[in-house]
Amino acid sequence: MATIKDSVHDHIEVEGVAEALLDTEEVQRLRHIKQLGTVQLVYPSANHTRFEHSLGVYHLASRALTHLGIEGVQAERIRAAALLHDVGHGPYSHNIESVTYRYTGKYHDDVHELIAEGSVGQVLRDNDLDPNRIADLVAGEGKYGQLVSGELDVDRMDYLVRDAHHTGVPYGTIDHERLIRELTFVDGELVLDEGNVQTAESLLLARALMNPTVYQHHVARISKAMLRQATERLLDQPDLTAAELRRMDDHDLLAALRMTPETKPFADRLDSRDLFKRAVWAEMDAVPDDVIDADHTTYRDFESRIAARADIDPESVIVDVPSRPSMTESTSRVMVSGEIRRLGKQSPLVSALRTAQKQQWRFGVYAPADETDAVGRAAVEEMGLDIDDALISDVRHGVHTTLDEFAE
Amino acid sequence: MATIKDSVHDHIEVEGVAEALLDTEEVQRLRHIKQLGTVQLVYPSANHTRFEHSLGVYHLASRALTHLGIEGVQAERIRAAALLHDVGHGPYSHNIESVTYRYTGKYHDDVHELIAEGSVGQVLRDNDLDPNRIADLVAGEGKYGQLVSGELDVDRMDYLVRDAHHTGVPYGTIDHERLIRELTFVDGELVLDEGNVQTAESLLLARALMNPTVYQHHVARISKAMLRQATERLLDQPDLTAAELRRMDDHDLLAALRMTPETKPFADRLDSRDLFKRAVWAEMDAVPDDVIDADHTTYRDFESRIAARADIDPESVIVDVPSRPSMTESTSRVMVSGEIRRLGKQSPLVSALRTAQKQQWRFGVYAPADETDAVGRAAVEEMGLDIDDALISDVRHGVHTTLDEFAE
Amino acid sequence: MATIKDSVHDHIEVEGVAEALLDTEEVQRLRHIKQLGTVQLVYPSANHTRFEHSLGVYHLASRALTHLGIEGVQAERIRAAALLHDVGHGPYSHNIESVTYRYTGKYHDDVHELIAEGSVGQVLRDNDLDPNRIADLVAGEGKYGQLVSGELDVDRMDYLVRDAHHTGVPYGTIDHERLIRELTFVDGELVLDEGNVQTAESLLLARALMNPTVYQHHVARISKAMLRQATERLLDQPDLTAAELRRMDDHDLLAALRMTPETKPFADRLDSRDLFKRAVWAEMDAVPDDVIDADHTTYRDFESRIAARADIDPESVIVDVPSRPSMTESTSRVMVSGEIRRLGKQSPLVSALRTAQKQQWRFGVYAPADETDAVGRAAVEEMGLDIDDALISDVRHGVHTTLDEFAE
Amino acid sequence: MATIKDSVHDHIEVEGVAEALLDTEEVQRLRHIKQLGTVQLVYPSANHTRFEHSLGVYHLASRALTHLGIEGVQAERIRAAALLHDVGHGPYSHNIESVTYRYTGKYHDDVHELIAEGSVGQVLRDNDLDPNRIADLVAGEGKYGQLVSGELDVDRMDYLVRDAHHTGVPYGTIDHERLIRELTFVDGELVLDEGNVQTAESLLLARALMNPTVYQHHVARISKAMLRQATERLLDQPDLTAAELRRMDDHDLLAALRMTPETKPFADRLDSRDLFKRAVWAEMDAVPDDVIDADHTTYRDFESRIAARADIDPESVIVDVPSRPSMTESTSRVMVSGEIRRLGKQSPLVSALRTAQKQQWRFGVYAPADETDAVGRAAVEEMGLDIDDALISDVRHGVHTTLDEFAE
Repeated sequence: MATIKDSVHDHIEVEGVAEALLDTEEVQRLRHIKQLGTVQLVYPSANHTRFEHSLGVYHLASRALTHLGIEGVQAERIRAAALLHDVGHGPYSHNIESVTYRYTGKYHDDVHELIAEGSVGQVLRDNDLDPNRIADLVAGEGKYGQLVSGELDVDRMDYLVRDAHHTGVPYGTIDHERLIRELTFVDGELVLDEGNVQTAESLLLARALMNPTVYQHHVARISKAMLRQATERLLDQPDLTAAELRRMDDHDLLAALRMTPETKPFADRLDSRDLFKRAVWAEMDAVPDDVIDADHTTYRDFESRIAARADIDPESVIVDVPSRPSMTESTSRVMVSGEIRRLGKQSPLVSALRTAQKQQWRFGVYAPADETDAVGRAAVEEMGLDIDDALISDVRHGVHTTLDEFAE
Repeated sequence: MATIKDSVHDHIEVEGVAEALLDTEEVQRLRHIKQLGTVQLVYPSANHTRFEHSLGVYHLASRALTHLGIEGVQAERIRAAALLHDVGHGPYSHNIESVTYRYTGKYHDDVHELIAEGSVGQVLRDNDLDPNRIADLVAGEGKYGQLVSGELDVDRMDYLVRDAHHTGVPYGTIDHERLIRELTFVDGELVLDEGNVQTAESLLLARALMNPTVYQHHVARISKAMLRQATERLLDQPDLTAAELRRMDDHDLLAALRMTPETKPFADRLDSRDLFKRAVWAEMDAVPDDVIDADHTTYRDFESRIAARADIDPESVIVDVPSRPSMTESTSRVMVSGEIRRLGKQSPLVSALRTAQKQQWRFGVYAPADETDAVGRAAVEEMGLDIDDALISDVRHGVHTTLDEFAE
Repeated sequence: MATIKDSVHDHIEVEGVAEALLDTEEVQRLRHIKQLGTVQLVYPSANHTRFEHSLGVYHLASRALTHLGIEGVQAERIRAAALLHDVGHGPYSHNIESVTYRYTGKYHDDVHELIAEGSVGQVLRDNDLDPNRIADLVAGEGKYGQLVSGELDVDRMDYLVRDAHHTGVPYGTIDHERLIRELTFVDGELVLDEGNVQTAESLLLARALMNPTVYQHHVARISKAMLRQATERLLDQPDLTAAELRRMDDHDLLAALRMTPETKPFADRLDSRDLFKRAVWAEMDAVPDDVIDADHTTYRDFESRIAARADIDPESVIVDVPSRPSMTESTSRVMVSGEIRRLGKQSPLVSALRTAQKQQWRFGVYAPADETDAVGRAAVEEMGLDIDDALISDVRHGVHTTLDEFAE
Repeated sequence: MATIKDSVHDHIEVEGVAEALLDTEEVQRLRHIKQLGTVQLVYPSANHTRFEHSLGVYHLASRALTHLGIEGVQAERIRAAALLHDVGHGPYSHNIESVTYRYTGKYHDDVHELIAEGSVGQVLRDNDLDPNRIADLVAGEGKYGQLVSGELDVDRMDYLVRDAHHTGVPYGTIDHERLIRELTFVDGELVLDEGNVQTAESLLLARALMNPTVYQHHVARISKAMLRQATERLLDQPDLTAAELRRMDDHDLLAALRMTPETKPFADRLDSRDLFKRAVWAEMDAVPDDVIDADHTTYRDFESRIAARADIDPESVIVDVPSRPSMTESTSRVMVSGEIRRLGKQSPLVSALRTAQKQQWRFGVYAPADETDAVGRAAVEEMGLDIDDALISDVRHGVHTTLDEFAE
């Protein structure tokens, strides 16, 4: 048994197949992938990695298994899945996922492939575990997949607390011990036991507050969009495939960006935190539906047209459109009066949070600091934005979330 | 200058008139009044006092004054008011307030009187401060009264964090530093600056989660209702006035309850944590409006009638009806696009929280463990409750909030 | 099983006989005894109780039992002993122990008697446990008694962390999880496993820093000495026996002190924190050996003679002589190279800490603020103190430990 | 003014010249240098960077300046020096310092050069500050240099608390606020005010416990030694100078190690955490003095000879000899009875800590796991080690500090 000291959960005991998995290069690689990618440019202490997060998820899964009385090979599978749930992440975590998946195809296939291959697959087979069943759990499939990837999964419980610890933003400080103690299976569904409507709400609210303050902070979004753009340039190079890029860690990606002439200007900007600024920052109502729902190629095309109209370099315009808000936690299930109820049905907060998410949604167009006026005007015209709500919203609409003096 | 070490804010520096006030018996008395009264019977670590809370409020007020650039005599007044804001509390904090005020009259008059009298009044006058102006601030009056007692006051900021620290329930862990840094006065109104809709919401949500989990936990409510009943018996004694009771501290009150034959049975129950149990625990819809809105005398009358019908001792029935929910924080003001907006207007969460509060509201009738069935049936009939929703709701409606195994 | 939320260890699960013991009045009484007595006058947040501490000790004992693989009736006994280890405490914890034991005899007998009697004895017998064996464990006897009361006991592990949490002084923040994980029995002796010399030292150092800063802070010592004096006056009253006083809680004692005319002046002083000040504060070298080693009666006699010489009321002089320092942790055992070694032999820090403790030791004579000069001079002459080191040492010798501005 | 959220100090306000310095690439580069280098291989959460540490040091310096009443240009200089104190660090912090300085010369010259050049020098001159005076402060020169780099500097106060927060090892949790509040200048010397012998000791003890547990953990030492060896191989390449290596960040260095064929095997080992193991782990007495005090070339020569004797590849042997222990904090100065005293004179703990440090000192020879026996035997013979104390000490002498199961 390996005992590992963690800043969030203190001592974590890793045993069984998980201990063997720990030493694989696939799991060790997670040491070099920051949990929150470019959020570190807003919250400088947010340097924690997917490795420690994976250990935390493993730890919470172990506690949940003890609580639920799950033992034997099923428990081994779940613990393995908890530790492995992030091995599929590319460099800079979610930041460039959209890029690599556009090039490589579906996430699900990839996870199954990854877990079956290499040292991880070997360790699993050596321990008489079927990699496919582990990958199913990672993908949230089956009864026990809910524990690893679902509305009440241990992944979320760990990252909220861990991100709060490392950013210094307290909103994510949920009562994870209580959440785990109240988990139970009813008719094959993972639910929170009687008397836990507030417990379920607290998880939802923690995400609802961390989201605009941390995960979707506009500076994190800008740098993420810049990173996405630079990574696409990188993939235009003949000697790098998307599959290779997916297997890089943060160091590899940064080094590649610095060394490739086409992406060096971006790397320089990132290194000196000389980021693009908001040319447009618009609420949902100000953006035509077909713009919100357009595809990747259309956005790239918009960028070219805006650049042309503003008479500047096409690389100096970035259009950034988040998905329409969804809120999967609202399907969390809680026992109420002996029946399973979806939280979205039971809690008046859930629909309010949906409305709040829509209010917080922002469409962004970014450009170098001295080009924001020209780019903003061009974007409004090219994309048919409702100009008054859009252009000046960053100043007037109070969308700033935190630390804006530094974050500009 | 006195420097005091605090478990929440670390070093607190007390200076000026506040330092002199610290040594008055009125302020020192707060050392012996628990912040959360009977909540300690649910959360055993919740033994913090009004004294340390008052220091915390003083500390946050000082930081707010520095941030707002308020100096001189006005600052002295506010700091004094912050330190003194709880000197009017009776023993066991809010738990018996309803009793003593029924006997003594208005809170406002009382605060003005208290602050003008005794050592506190003397210290204030010695420092050329008008006790009346300090009392006005404590009562939340005037522009600066908003800082001490208002929707965005430092009182709330301290108690949420402090109660979280001492109960172990993390929901109250707000970002108080950010809240204070974003305070500003606009047209004489205390508001949060641009970009702080989420900051304001976080304060609201922290209260919304702490309320059912901590402040209104049913065991805390039961013991508070028992304390209220016992205190009334105490006031029936010829040798104790309500005014005297108000000036007691927790020790005095407990000693009096133990030594008075009429209240000793209650004291014994409290000492051995042998509390009444819920005979009725009903949602708002199950309770006739005229019962919800009845007055004190009517409730006492109900208790007698229920006891008679159940054929038990009248002291073995307690009817406990909380006020209809209100949510004053919803009037918190935030700057949005250069205008002052009430949070209730701006945030979709606020009306949802109102609905949630109504859902969480519970009407209680309590009795000794072996009398709950009889008392429950009698109460339903005497009070015209909708029986199915009421009697068995504690089992069926999932109102338990936390730690219920122990809390029963 | 009862689950209780704790500010230090989060969720604590109480099961078996311990759950039944929880509801006895003897254990519930600990809710009303502050863990640190008068230390609260220096650190206002230090209001935690023997009850929550007892739960914490129970919790750490449970973890240690799991780690050590101890199960069955032996484990039940140890858990019971952990929960009960402080039921013998009188009001204000250690503060008046010296008084009550002088009147009632030995601690050991008392614990055995207490645990055999009343509800606790009944619960134990109902669970087929022999109260005497539990009392032996509380007294630290036998192999397993080391876990409850010994150099490496869980009592100390809990109180250091808990006192740090509640005072705000971080020095007590030990790594209690590591300590428990490294416990092992070798030849019937409880030791720390190989590689834990530093772990053992860290426990020792935490105590060495908490001691002068918290437990022996001069203001805590002064108020404790005043409390001791007042309690003796209380015991001079015909209607109170020492045995009765031992069974009081903090409320009873404070109420009795306030209501007894002979002790009311003390109660008033305590209530308004108008404490005696140091008239003498002398290092060990300044005090004759026979004074250091004198008995209780002699100290009371010194007080009378000093008062007579200074021409003041005899109750206005308090002589306070701590025991000569001892350091039982230095006998903690650690495995080194396969052998059990006493930490005192292995660690060069231990003898240094002994020297440091001797340096920190202070002899005190206390008096009302305006009598300290006269009393100081009289004490020096009556007791043959080396005057230069003594009288002015509080100003010149830097013995202040913390927060002295407030603490004066 | 920029406000930055920090996981340790919460909100940090950066103003004046420091705000301008924040945006320089030299300071931004510190975002990519881990504070604890290879310690992350033992404590996976220890991913904090020199950037956040520099902000923390700036913050504590600002508080110290306020406390000490230092204002104007002198304060600007000190704040700048605090923020810049680590700009001279190479990649992987202290881990490869010995390598780069062997190639480039003195640290002092380097700091002066670095601060005078580039964007940092420009910003300083733009703000009418002389880079040389800032560099003097960074080097600890002059009265105010003591604040930035001295026995009581804010650098140490920040890193102890920060390293504790991120490793999860609580020993570093000092009371930094108290330390800063007690700083004072007496006759130009920075000292702790009267009554702070324990405060000074607590700083010393925190380091004494963090050192073996964290900073000198044997796995951190092994990986650091491997990194040192690999970096030397890197510098053997024609296209990289030591000066260039010094200006790399962690990403650059890792990428270079991975891409250079001569160092790729090391990079692979590091990436899969397949580290060398201890072939020899000897106490000081077991090592001849001339070995302890030998120079770099001699150690490299020993490695070749050991490899030859053991008949293995020369790169498979690493000799790692720490400096003889020193303890500069022992010269911390504290006011005692109105005189400045060195802590080493005042505190019996200091000499004990010196002895403890000598006890903890370990000489290491490392090799791949399956070569440790052969290499151990060869090393004992080549270097004249006292074999019994040496070879098997890792098993028998209990030098393991923490988490050894994982750390092997």
